[in-house]
Amino acid sequence: MIKLYHCQRARSMRPLWALEEMGLDYELVTLQFPPRVFHKEYKEVNPLGTVPALIDGEVMLTESAACCQYLAERYGPTELAVRPDEPDYGLWLNWLHRSDATLTFPQTLVLRYSRLEPEERRNPQVVEDYRLWYLGRLRSVEAALADRDWLCAGRFTMADICIGYCLVLSAELGIEEAFTPAIRRWYERLAERPAFQRAHTL
Amino acid sequence: MIKLYHCQRARSMRPLWALEEMGLDYELVTLQFPPRVFHKEYKEVNPLGTVPALIDGEVMLTESAACCQYLAERYGPTELAVRPDEPDYGLWLNWLHRSDATLTFPQTLVLRYSRLEPEERRNPQVVEDYRLWYLGRLRSVEAALADRDWLCAGRFTMADICIGYCLVLSAELGIEEAFTPAIRRWYERLAERPAFQRAHTL
Repeated sequence: MIKLYHCQRARSMRPLWALEEMGLDYELVTLQFPPRVFHKEYKEVNPLGTVPALIDGEVMLTESAACCQYLAERYGPTELAVRPDEPDYGLWLNWLHRSDATLTFPQTLVLRYSRLEPEERRNPQVVEDYRLWYLGRLRSVEAALADRDWLCAGRFTMADICIGYCLVLSAELGIEEAFTPAIRRWYERLAERPAFQRAHTL
Repeated sequence: MIKLYHCQRARSMRPLWALEEMGLDYELVTLQFPPRVFHKEYKEVNPLGTVPALIDGEVMLTESAACCQYLAERYGPTELAVRPDEPDYGLWLNWLHRSDATLTFPQTLVLRYSRLEPEERRNPQVVEDYRLWYLGRLRSVEAALADRDWLCAGRFTMADICIGYCLVLSAELGIEEAFTPAIRRWYERLAERPAFQRAHTL
């Protein structure tokens, strides 16, 4: 059975949400964040000390957007994936990669230098630099949603899960400016989904 | 024809190297780095102001690892892709996503706060934090290469291109500690490839 190591509302929410959307069986192991501090033994599972770790037989994935793509491909066919012969295939891949590489990373800087570091190592300049960086990059999401309900292919896909998580993290971090009009309406649609609600709570 | 916007040895080297490995025809537009400073008009092509921008008919991709996956899928079949029915498919996806989300982003912090920002905004603490973060994450690459020539599937794939670029950037940034024994040997194999050499120079 698939096993997922998870911290509540950390990046592992992406594969958790995907598992819930697909109705797959899985075993969930929930850790306290950050696991490298609270669960030293977790390094034996994932030497990086990060979540997610998604284990499926001999395979382990630790990159949250890769997990979603993997689940769709290995346990599909599913409408959550965009197939290479669909016009939006390239756009779909771009959203999957953008979700973590371009939109989550600046938020981790905000998290680290405003909350996780001890007082004397906090850094308001870097927090502000990357809050603004994130909001700048997020304009691509607002623009994409201006005239459609979902990010690509005319339906809810793994792209909405992967980018949607960025907004979950914005809410956690209090980055309210992230919720521009089209993003706010889309986020409300996401939050109505039972799979979102379970993944958000677990 | 495919059109690629590129800055020398920036992340756009990933799709450029992939195009060269696949022997595809393309038009290359080389910009001075960072393009948002030197080529204001480039925002009309890519509103993010980043490279790469890979344009293929109606499709534009801006995430470098997504470009590589797209090229392999749309212009394959190619041995540079790992197919979903191969045992290393999950591992392959994980390397593709890890290349930018986990290994390039800390290096961009080093670049920004040691070179790109004006003197008064530079930040040795953040440079050192993310140099160490990068080296920690890079241990997964050293470990993977300890007993094999390529990162997955027993052959050179897009994973070697995407992760290999991280080491190109390390060389640019003077992060010499990145070149641990197995990584050094692998990097020498990469650097022997004619497609690497062309992409590294263009």
